[in-house]
Amino acid sequence: MAEEVILLDFWCSMYGMRARIALAEKGVNYEYKEEDLKNKSPLLLQMNPIHKKIPVLIHNGKSICESLVIVQYIDDVWKGNGNLLIPSDPYEKAQAWFWSDYMDNTVHEYARKTWATKGEEQEQEQAVKDFLGGLQLIEGVLGDKPYFGGDNFGFLDVSLIGYYSWFLAYETFGKFNVESECPKLISWVKRCLERDSVSKALPDSEKVREFVQNLRKKFGLE
Amino acid sequence: MAEEVILLDFWCSMYGMRARIALAEKGVNYEYKEEDLKNKSPLLLQMNPIHKKIPVLIHNGKSICESLVIVQYIDDVWKGNGNLLIPSDPYEKAQAWFWSDYMDNTVHEYARKTWATKGEEQEQEQAVKDFLGGLQLIEGVLGDKPYFGGDNFGFLDVSLIGYYSWFLAYETFGKFNVESECPKLISWVKRCLERDSVSKALPDSEKVREFVQNLRKKFGLE
Repeated sequence: MAEEVILLDFWCSMYGMRARIALAEKGVNYEYKEEDLKNKSPLLLQMNPIHKKIPVLIHNGKSICESLVIVQYIDDVWKGNGNLLIPSDPYEKAQAWFWSDYMDNTVHEYARKTWATKGEEQEQEQAVKDFLGGLQLIEGVLGDKPYFGGDNFGFLDVSLIGYYSWFLAYETFGKFNVESECPKLISWVKRCLERDSVSKALPDSEKVREFVQNLRKKFGLE
Repeated sequence: MAEEVILLDFWCSMYGMRARIALAEKGVNYEYKEEDLKNKSPLLLQMNPIHKKIPVLIHNGKSICESLVIVQYIDDVWKGNGNLLIPSDPYEKAQAWFWSDYMDNTVHEYARKTWATKGEEQEQEQAVKDFLGGLQLIEGVLGDKPYFGGDNFGFLDVSLIGYYSWFLAYETFGKFNVESECPKLISWVKRCLERDSVSKALPDSEKVREFVQNLRKKFGLE
């Protein structure tokens, strides 16, 4: 049976990038459908009626939602293709899920505050401090390994690398530099960007910065 | 090597209950350590320095945090014991994670508002409506199967059943009845309670109601 694989996505979503990278790592052909988030498609509303959010993977008519769940699904279904993304060791697997969750539910909020605060300098400074603190913790998890997955690019690498495309925006509006605080993390970024799966999935950082600048204008922040 | 398994927990945490149930399903002996959440133990702070939250599973000195990650870890490590909790089918596995996440990140907040609102009757009525709507969606996922895991008690059953011990509190303070709205869900609860793993892990609903009443007093809600 011919596989039908569709990804409903939005170009600068770090969550969508996870799905794009995992599909590329597994060599899966798919149809990319860009969503207009201000005017969501009937297909998105039908396929993710609960949250109405991208990314959604549609595989032979069935929808899979939530980005980490999508990456897990891709790793399970196309397990013969390429390396396994999810660690087979139970403890490493648990760590990969834990830190992905930490990035999404804790550090992402600090990151948002680096550009989404209005004038409150102290609040923004605190956000920058918290964001860099979170990244440094994550850098500690990387240690001296080439990838979070050890010698292989794995689940936690897929989870984290999309955030890089937003770093320039965070740095511009929060007035700081990630590389000077987290040099090992940036070396890891460069290593990841050598992979086609990553370089083709991540948008141009300058375009993300413009996107964030437009959001700031819209929210009356500048 | 003798296994050392410790669970840091709090008696009425539905997240902690997941770990208790999974350990019981797999027949794992462990030491239960009740935490005083107002005065957290040095062990908890050491083992979950990021979130400082229970439950934490400590296995031979290594800590695993976040309840769903803990259940996954238990299922992986003791996979020879009892049924697999996590579905082997990739789509069913994705669904089990998705709905667990929906319960924790959406329905739980509605549930909290059924008892944690102060006088704002409209807000509380909306919370009850939202909570029951969420449960009805989940009941739809169950359909006519005996368990969410199909014929076997599985990951999503473990994720959801602990919430039942809070239903009496929600019903008392929100003035509604789950069974009249979701009869199939309550039949499922009764089926789950026939399992030792569940009946021994869930606290007495009346004690949870008292606990919530004390919280309401503390927060000046009554």
